[in-house]
Amino acid sequence: MSLPGHVVLCECFARDGLQNQEEVVATDLKVQFVDAATEAGFRKIEVASYAHPKYLPQFADTAEVLRRIRRRPGVSYLGLVPNDRGLDRCLEHCQKGHGPDVIGTILSASEPHNLANVKRTLAESRTEIESLCRRARREGLRVAGGIATAFGCPIQGDVAFEAVAELAVWYADLGVEAILFGDTTGVANPVQVEAFFGRMLERVPGVAAIAHFHNTRGTALANCVAALRAGVTHLDGSVGGVGGRPKFTEGSYPKIMGFTGNACTEDLVAMLEEMGVPTGIDLDRLLELGRLAERILGRELLAHVVKTGLVKH
Amino acid sequence: MSLPGHVVLCECFARDGLQNQEEVVATDLKVQFVDAATEAGFRKIEVASYAHPKYLPQFADTAEVLRRIRRRPGVSYLGLVPNDRGLDRCLEHCQKGHGPDVIGTILSASEPHNLANVKRTLAESRTEIESLCRRARREGLRVAGGIATAFGCPIQGDVAFEAVAELAVWYADLGVEAILFGDTTGVANPVQVEAFFGRMLERVPGVAAIAHFHNTRGTALANCVAALRAGVTHLDGSVGGVGGRPKFTEGSYPKIMGFTGNACTEDLVAMLEEMGVPTGIDLDRLLELGRLAERILGRELLAHVVKTGLVKH
Repeated sequence: MSLPGHVVLCECFARDGLQNQEEVVATDLKVQFVDAATEAGFRKIEVASYAHPKYLPQFADTAEVLRRIRRRPGVSYLGLVPNDRGLDRCLEHCQKGHGPDVIGTILSASEPHNLANVKRTLAESRTEIESLCRRARREGLRVAGGIATAFGCPIQGDVAFEAVAELAVWYADLGVEAILFGDTTGVANPVQVEAFFGRMLERVPGVAAIAHFHNTRGTALANCVAALRAGVTHLDGSVGGVGGRPKFTEGSYPKIMGFTGNACTEDLVAMLEEMGVPTGIDLDRLLELGRLAERILGRELLAHVVKTGLVKH
Repeated sequence: MSLPGHVVLCECFARDGLQNQEEVVATDLKVQFVDAATEAGFRKIEVASYAHPKYLPQFADTAEVLRRIRRRPGVSYLGLVPNDRGLDRCLEHCQKGHGPDVIGTILSASEPHNLANVKRTLAESRTEIESLCRRARREGLRVAGGIATAFGCPIQGDVAFEAVAELAVWYADLGVEAILFGDTTGVANPVQVEAFFGRMLERVPGVAAIAHFHNTRGTALANCVAALRAGVTHLDGSVGGVGGRPKFTEGSYPKIMGFTGNACTEDLVAMLEEMGVPTGIDLDRLLELGRLAERILGRELLAHVVKTGLVKH
């Protein structure tokens, strides 16, 4: 099997993972988690969201989290910036010396999903993100451009590869350093994923392609392997498999709260290391991070290896 | 991605799945389950075990289950035969016209695991299985030979490919129609699996190779895809992901009851169909089968698609 010589994992628990949790997590615990993720060896950690606290009270403490985490050189701390007002606040934090290193933007490849998710047409989102990218880059902020529903949409159904590729090229022209391709509701399959990235990497050769899978249907790890086979070297995961369930999808997914979410980082990293693909992550510290996430949320989460142990122990 | 043109799934809930359940399931429910599996389109269904009821009271009704199920032509109903005395009882049932179509035998590639699992040295197991195979074939019974810990052992650690290959060739020489390669404690990874089957299919070219993965560490579906890539066309799964936890491993897996088991059939079949690999299984009936399994065991099981629905619905 032809696989990349290393993989960069982004740990998304502290933002994507917490976004849809019922309870607001204490700032101390978020800081403790991010510091433990840094110690475990992650080089990319999603830390914060600049969504308005009225809509996402979970992230009212974004400034404090970013101020208090112990940053390690070479590690990128990411913040999601949904709109211009979010960027205003983000740049304030940057000016005080505690902004994120990279900001994430998001729109959907599917128009109806974009309307449901960010209450904008795709054209409106594109205009806003163009402005965001220009302002961010002027201030020296790196940008990762996110494309949701890249592999299919729960509202529209199939999403054409060309629709996603057109957005990816647009992002690349805006100067982003990475493009995140999100399988927002876990509809992708390994055959599709390998073909998708095989073509996509040729379309945006100068930009890191991030594969962001949800485990909605149990396929996240299989899809991660398929992405690696196509040459992808950046994967997202969330400790405990937490996250990945936008609230507006509740109607179509009645019973899945706490059941399905992002690709589970612990299982993913353990599998990659067993496969001989180095991640740079300390597995024992990763399992400890998984147990910390369970204490933070007060329930058992979805990582298998946290319960069953690593293979070589 | 090069994949086989079709896959034969064996549904293992009624035997492997139930073997380690705390409660004995009523015969009516087992029959109902097997009949529903037949209706859903499975061509191989594991139905019964000839383990002595003193050790596995779950299977005291094996004769009755085999007698009452509604068999469909072209579908193979399997019974596990652990030893000579089991085969005696099995052949009695066959003479009365309600035996299994195929019997399964089992030994481990790892000597210490074989001792722990079947209380015999490997040499003792081989002698007994040789006798089993000869008697079974004389009576017109087909045999599937099982090799546990084919990808690694929780006691011994690594298991040499050649140790497994030697057993596989031995089984082939005994005239089995299939060889099951079991990842008994879920230690396999996709790189290993693809290399393993790439070599193994050349060693036993005339025999169906069955890939039997456990989801102990979340990798079962990724491993199934890897097996298919290597040319495997026979996969095992259990509805609800039930099973796959030998009781003697309790010490090493303190918390995993109900959490991890066989590759989950519903998620596996849904993924394969999305990948364009036909299984012959009706997906709606499969989801109904998953809900039946949940009613039988009185708890939520591990299938994602039973909760989240199929992609194209």
